Amino acid sequence: MVETPARPESRGERKERTRRAILDAALALCEDSSLVALSLRQVAKEVGIVPTAFYRHFESIEALGLELVDESFVSLRAMLRDVRRRDPALEDVIDGSIRILVEHVHQQRAHFHFIARERAAGPPTVRGAIRHEIELCERELAADLTRLPDIGPWSAEDLRVLSNLIVMAMVATAEAILSAPRRPDAEKQIVETARTQLRMVLIGALNWRSRS
Amino acid sequence: MVETPARPESRGERKERTRRAILDAALALCEDSSLVALSLRQVAKEVGIVPTAFYRHFESIEALGLELVDESFVSLRAMLRDVRRRDPALEDVIDGSIRILVEHVHQQRAHFHFIARERAAGPPTVRGAIRHEIELCERELAADLTRLPDIGPWSAEDLRVLSNLIVMAMVATAEAILSAPRRPDAEKQIVETARTQLRMVLIGALNWRSRS
Repeated sequence: MVETPARPESRGERKERTRRAILDAALALCEDSSLVALSLRQVAKEVGIVPTAFYRHFESIEALGLELVDESFVSLRAMLRDVRRRDPALEDVIDGSIRILVEHVHQQRAHFHFIARERAAGPPTVRGAIRHEIELCERELAADLTRLPDIGPWSAEDLRVLSNLIVMAMVATAEAILSAPRRPDAEKQIVETARTQLRMVLIGALNWRSRS
Repeated sequence: MVETPARPESRGERKERTRRAILDAALALCEDSSLVALSLRQVAKEVGIVPTAFYRHFESIEALGLELVDESFVSLRAMLRDVRRRDPALEDVIDGSIRILVEHVHQQRAHFHFIARERAAGPPTVRGAIRHEIELCERELAADLTRLPDIGPWSAEDLRVLSNLIVMAMVATAEAILSAPRRPDAEKQIVETARTQLRMVLIGALNWRSRS
């Protein structure tokens, strides 16, 4: 149910609040299933609106799903770019990137559960949107890597392959955090594993002779 | 529907054939959804048996899911072990492992679609079984890596971390093949990417000083 706040709301505020309630209801409802199995009617019922009112906010369940994909990635990608452009030392970039990822997974746990699940089991458009976001992460990383003196002269293909490997390790780290028991020691081991892996990858990259 | 063969069957053969039909029906039915949404009644209808007959073969839909997990991993793990123990050169082991993975994904495409989806969206027991199989792949790889002269003296923790990274890259490769367009050039790029990544990782590992 949409809660009513103490002071009177504007129409815009109310619309935004209902929209948020719809997004949150969808996240909660498909926790044990998938967007594929979610009906507009279920979401409307959970929010306390009539089914037709859903369309004032989203064209379809899939459009709602695409909005959740956006919410999950936009600020994460921006923050990862920031840490790479601010910190010159590679070890600091690795540690900073993992820290940002872990914080995001904590702050948006339901969102990242949604991403982990829909990436494999969602409707084709939503799977495609998630794949696209992950590819954007890779391309942005590749662009930043060209600014490193030891990696700069690499071929575009080797840069793509390296970025793909790093982003894949980050995705696996996020998924490991989501499926691990929620204890600090379990998470600490996952974070340590990711740090060591990214260091190994970087050492491999720095010793790699690219056919540029 | 279960097809009837030309010559008379023994009871055992018939039971086995129905069991196979149930497994295949489940694979086909949850192609666009997940085991979570699959009912025993649907499977029985597809196979052409009464719902109670299902229990002569499996205790539950989840038990059926666990059987599909077994079928997907048992021979794959055995063949990956074989290639590591037969080929002494690291580059050959990388190429051989990727080749085996790609062949398995082709031969058991429905099974690996099932694994990719249920790993993220399946019932908890099935997710757990898939995680367990992936961990077994990692442990078996770590055991084989200790036999390499340059890696042998590593700490158990670094070996675990390295094996986790390699297996993660293999999982991502399988998932990339499954979601790529089914054209030889698309698959060739995925395979080339995986080969370069595993070589980078190995170069990183060989230049890594483990705190053993």
